[in-house]
Amino acid sequence: MKNLQTNCLLTISYLGTHFHGWQIQPNKRTVQGVIEEVMSKVFVDNIAIIGSGRTDAGVHAIRAKANALLPTNFLKKHFYKNGFLFEKLITVLNSYLPSDVRILAIKKVKNSFNARFDAKSKTYEYRVQTSGILSPFDADKYLFFNKNLDVAKMIEASKYLIGKHDFTAFCSAQTATNDHIRTIFDIKIRQIKNKTYFNITGNGFLYNMVRIIVGTLIDVGCGKIEPIKVLEILNSKNRTQAGKTLPPHALYLKQVNY
Amino acid sequence: MKNLQTNCLLTISYLGTHFHGWQIQPNKRTVQGVIEEVMSKVFVDNIAIIGSGRTDAGVHAIRAKANALLPTNFLKKHFYKNGFLFEKLITVLNSYLPSDVRILAIKKVKNSFNARFDAKSKTYEYRVQTSGILSPFDADKYLFFNKNLDVAKMIEASKYLIGKHDFTAFCSAQTATNDHIRTIFDIKIRQIKNKTYFNITGNGFLYNMVRIIVGTLIDVGCGKIEPIKVLEILNSKNRTQAGKTLPPHALYLKQVNY
Repeated sequence: MKNLQTNCLLTISYLGTHFHGWQIQPNKRTVQGVIEEVMSKVFVDNIAIIGSGRTDAGVHAIRAKANALLPTNFLKKHFYKNGFLFEKLITVLNSYLPSDVRILAIKKVKNSFNARFDAKSKTYEYRVQTSGILSPFDADKYLFFNKNLDVAKMIEASKYLIGKHDFTAFCSAQTATNDHIRTIFDIKIRQIKNKTYFNITGNGFLYNMVRIIVGTLIDVGCGKIEPIKVLEILNSKNRTQAGKTLPPHALYLKQVNY
Repeated sequence: MKNLQTNCLLTISYLGTHFHGWQIQPNKRTVQGVIEEVMSKVFVDNIAIIGSGRTDAGVHAIRAKANALLPTNFLKKHFYKNGFLFEKLITVLNSYLPSDVRILAIKKVKNSFNARFDAKSKTYEYRVQTSGILSPFDADKYLFFNKNLDVAKMIEASKYLIGKHDFTAFCSAQTATNDHIRTIFDIKIRQIKNKTYFNITGNGFLYNMVRIIVGTLIDVGCGKIEPIKVLEILNSKNRTQAGKTLPPHALYLKQVNY
């Protein structure tokens, strides 16, 4: 009998604080590793999941995506009644998962679907608190940067980054790929009281790219550099021209669009 | 020359997750221990702080209080200009403190003031999520209890606890004191979407008392016991009659009134 598989799209949320990032690595606690372990236990079979992309150690996800080819016979035996009982499967998986990672949704997708290669865009959010005292309840979720940020200037600077560009100046030297061309569709910056939120949507991001872009925009916001300088940095294709790589604990993978 | 001291009232917030509670203990990470260590370093002197009360391992504080007798000469030398520069002192202390504890405010109080003995009332909050999926970002802050809670019934039951009573039925057998008479001034229960918040204000609380009261009210809320049963439990003065001691990670010391 043929071993049929049902391709499923998972929506996943995790607190990155205690993970060595998304991608499975030997002897490290990773999101992919923890989920694959639980799914393999539940399905009594080796289950591999394909993430929408890697996130670095410490980076959080509000709605990450991954797909998994699940054994259809097992699903039909335990999670089927006039259709797949994905709510039941979610409850079972979450009961085994540690509390810092949750499956939020599961749906069936066509067998050819690939969570990584079919992603049209991703939105990352970076969160900064710019005055006052950073609450202990926000300490692992916000960057504390105790200076006023000029949002209008940061928005002006961000416009230079929209579109298809070579982002060599805004990626880590450790970027694995030689193709540094990416498209940024949108950058939104909003302030709510003493919190500033940077939302960056693109077709893909190079290693540390979001954290370097926000680091550079913050240099603009606090007056260290002028907005037009961001265009010069982009054109320089020189990493040393851009701002600092901000820490990971304030970065969130917010959405993946297909 | 006489070693003058200035009595200061501190408002303190902490995430309890990685602390073995408030009270200083050898070889344990405690809130009192961490603050005393930093203050002693800053003031180059042994500084002891008197907390408004102990919180157990894992319990959080939104606005805890403590007082400390600080060396006046040192304060005048480093933190004084037409008055005490408490904002500057807060900034210095927070720069040394770990990010899961923050000093929110400091003010001068009369020398006889004692944060523990002068407390007129304290309010604790217990937070519960009753449906859906508990977000990884809330996992160390809410109890997940996957049942509907009848708030009207819980409020009815809570009325029996208001006033001056012997709370033996609602405290741990490990309570250090023999005097189990306490006064509860108010219990507020509110639901916002799938979150339920219990606010309990009293003149003092026995060991585990808030967590046992809320555990018992939840028994009422989910229909396990009738509201009137809470009066019987109170009168029984028997710990085994009351509900479970709920876990500490959803409990917050919210306010201390003087």
